[in-house]
Amino acid sequence: MGSHSTNTFSPLDSNTFTDESKIVIDFIADYYKNIEKYPVRSQVQPGYLSAELPQSAPYFPESLKDILKDVSNSIMPGLTHWQSPNFFAYFQANASNAGFLGEMLCSGLNIVGFNWISSPAATELESLVIDWMGKLLKLPPSFLFSGNGGGVLHGSTCEAVVCTLAAARDKALKRMGWDKITKLVVYASDQTHATLFKGTKLVGIPSSNIRSLPTSFLSGFSLPPQTLQEAIENDIKSGFYPLFLCATVGTTACGAVDPIREVGEIATKCNLWFHIDAAYAGSACICPEFRHYLDGVELADSISMNPHKWLLTNMDCCCLWVKQPHSLINSLASDAEYLRNSASESNNVVDYKDWQIALSRRFKALKLWVVLRRHGLSNIMCHIRSDVNLAKRFESLVGTDKRFEIVVPRRFALVCFRLKPYNGINGPELNRRLLSAVNESGLFIRCAIGSTLTEERHVNELWKLIQDKAQTILANAAT
Amino acid sequence: MGSHSTNTFSPLDSNTFTDESKIVIDFIADYYKNIEKYPVRSQVQPGYLSAELPQSAPYFPESLKDILKDVSNSIMPGLTHWQSPNFFAYFQANASNAGFLGEMLCSGLNIVGFNWISSPAATELESLVIDWMGKLLKLPPSFLFSGNGGGVLHGSTCEAVVCTLAAARDKALKRMGWDKITKLVVYASDQTHATLFKGTKLVGIPSSNIRSLPTSFLSGFSLPPQTLQEAIENDIKSGFYPLFLCATVGTTACGAVDPIREVGEIATKCNLWFHIDAAYAGSACICPEFRHYLDGVELADSISMNPHKWLLTNMDCCCLWVKQPHSLINSLASDAEYLRNSASESNNVVDYKDWQIALSRRFKALKLWVVLRRHGLSNIMCHIRSDVNLAKRFESLVGTDKRFEIVVPRRFALVCFRLKPYNGINGPELNRRLLSAVNESGLFIRCAIGSTLTEERHVNELWKLIQDKAQTILANAAT
Repeated sequence: MGSHSTNTFSPLDSNTFTDESKIVIDFIADYYKNIEKYPVRSQVQPGYLSAELPQSAPYFPESLKDILKDVSNSIMPGLTHWQSPNFFAYFQANASNAGFLGEMLCSGLNIVGFNWISSPAATELESLVIDWMGKLLKLPPSFLFSGNGGGVLHGSTCEAVVCTLAAARDKALKRMGWDKITKLVVYASDQTHATLFKGTKLVGIPSSNIRSLPTSFLSGFSLPPQTLQEAIENDIKSGFYPLFLCATVGTTACGAVDPIREVGEIATKCNLWFHIDAAYAGSACICPEFRHYLDGVELADSISMNPHKWLLTNMDCCCLWVKQPHSLINSLASDAEYLRNSASESNNVVDYKDWQIALSRRFKALKLWVVLRRHGLSNIMCHIRSDVNLAKRFESLVGTDKRFEIVVPRRFALVCFRLKPYNGINGPELNRRLLSAVNESGLFIRCAIGSTLTEERHVNELWKLIQDKAQTILANAAT
Repeated sequence: MGSHSTNTFSPLDSNTFTDESKIVIDFIADYYKNIEKYPVRSQVQPGYLSAELPQSAPYFPESLKDILKDVSNSIMPGLTHWQSPNFFAYFQANASNAGFLGEMLCSGLNIVGFNWISSPAATELESLVIDWMGKLLKLPPSFLFSGNGGGVLHGSTCEAVVCTLAAARDKALKRMGWDKITKLVVYASDQTHATLFKGTKLVGIPSSNIRSLPTSFLSGFSLPPQTLQEAIENDIKSGFYPLFLCATVGTTACGAVDPIREVGEIATKCNLWFHIDAAYAGSACICPEFRHYLDGVELADSISMNPHKWLLTNMDCCCLWVKQPHSLINSLASDAEYLRNSASESNNVVDYKDWQIALSRRFKALKLWVVLRRHGLSNIMCHIRSDVNLAKRFESLVGTDKRFEIVVPRRFALVCFRLKPYNGINGPELNRRLLSAVNESGLFIRCAIGSTLTEERHVNELWKLIQDKAQTILANAAT
């Protein structure tokens, strides 16, 4: 038991720390080495775990060996392996060594950086690194601390949306009175992420006040400016107050991009808070060849993107920039005797508790800072381009097989494809069968390339599997 | 550069992972070994860091050695060392080896567990471990999954408050219509944490609808039930709708405890959502001698506590239990084509995205699970009791010095004390001087004992320092 006996309980003994941490490092390294041996999607049935683990916490300490044995035997079979090179579902959450190192430093130092004084380095490194990211994306200076804007690291897009919606709401209601909250309207395309609905409702705006504006195949599923303009005009006529526009760069369903400049001009003209959700494709915009998707960003009030998706930053990390930090702070500031300090009162420092939902926060910036430094922009661009090239490769494989078609033109590393109708059986039915057949092997039909470990051979094998399953389905459909 | 050269960029190479991770482990272990050498509170001036680090991200990768050098030289001086045994500020955020190991496993596996299918083990282990914690606190079965309630791991109390407020709000507004949102009222004592104000405003209820009910020294700064009852009656008479009561077990300012059963009975009678915020003192309630502070918890709709404060769980970890999960889910569920799956549609599984603000989430349960197993209840109780005993020791030291007095009776490991008035100078002024004098050494007057590494000698040295500073101040006041 060593330092873990009851008489001399030393839960932060540095020798035990070193020994046991290194055992876990080896355990995780083994996992990465063997990750291709696991089925990507967990094959367990609901409730499997409660049959394998005890129903209450142990009274006496257990050994790390026993805990890791349970991780291997009981947890691993219940994992969907997001770091597998054969993971093509949702959007990737790509991990990297650097992301892991940064996370360790954050967890090891374990400070709580709610305001500047509670750990100045946590605040100042975050302001620095969010300016770094803003510069990589060539955001206008008005979004950077160095240009009187600023940014913050959130855990998720939903948090960024909730905070910006609250800021926009409070700015409007201060003028109009709180009872107008039921008349505020939020606009987005029907391709926008579900978090916008969740966030809108969370801040007290009725769900019925979200205008989910229709897109179509013809417009590449991007928001038609004219549709936005008409919706705003209709709402004003009906006595509503247009509040907030959320445009997306890289939608979840098919990677569509809204026309930032055109919708931004409408938002500006109509005095809407204009937010850009670049959760997925924002990472690609560090490469010059993708940056044009952000053209017009200078019209936005806020923009967010998630390095935890495609920028080699382990979960979680979402960057949010705002042009007017005081709008956020007016909504989110909290004050209490135990939080007062001369640094905050001087107004010379950032207190990040006033930029986010929670009061407490980890030393979030370390992770992104280590990622950017250890990898360097050169390698990170190479990583993005490699994924895009693999997606192109997959797209061309689909293109050579006449039974299939590409549904939406590929922009980034997401390929949306389907079986064409066959022998009187419609496309949707065939694709349901294909999706189901492919998923039994632990994969998904909507193919998002970007797991850190994915190489060309994994993409080739994926395509072969899809073709095999398609052949069986079409053979059955023929009889 | 090894695997980090541009041509063969392998950001998740398992050999590099092992080598570099172990270097960081040694770095953190050294930090713990030398932690007493640092001043607890950072001595830097606002803006110090931007003078030391470059203003943009590097193009080429940098070595881990260079990064760690910057952590030592530029980050460390800007830290307030929350893990120092001489840290007695705010409430502690106590780290432990086990918490760190769990965090490493979470970061290494790097799955995204928004719904059951996206990683069944992440969901099922969370449901298991939150039931474990509920049983340690002797919560009634109605709060456990095994009793048709359930719980979730959030990052912070504010998130728990926002989610329960939204659930209560939506339940009420469904009946009354959304335009009544401006008439909903939230109750708490004037000692409640600032997060309640923030959360209430976030969910769209006007700040003016928060009743911050007066407490006094006579009632030990706990909420007088009669005051609550009268406030509710007044609001009903004035056309408001009483919605939500937040009671606290262990307030931030002085560790006060609201009378759970008495205020709970009023909440039940008046049909309020009754939430208990046990962020700090909830951890103590795993010890039988403190459990009575939760008596009456069966009257609550929800209760939250933070293992990241006092339960040896590295940041962040907040447990929230609810009796009626469907109330949370009705408010927070999001649905989208890319999230549909047969497991969710079967209603046999928990989808934690519907229990929290964000969609995405880490494998949060691993950390708390490893903490509970590696330490065991016996050691964790020993840890709580050791802190309480040190606080008693400090309290008795204060009691032996006639120049000082204890402000509020100590209940847990927080001691609130002050200098008595002296030579015509009032108490507040003297204590401002003492607070300022003590803080220059990197400490605070409100003494919260609980950092993992704190031993009796640190408490003795703290007291000696306070006495020295007091002597100087009183000597000056005498002249």
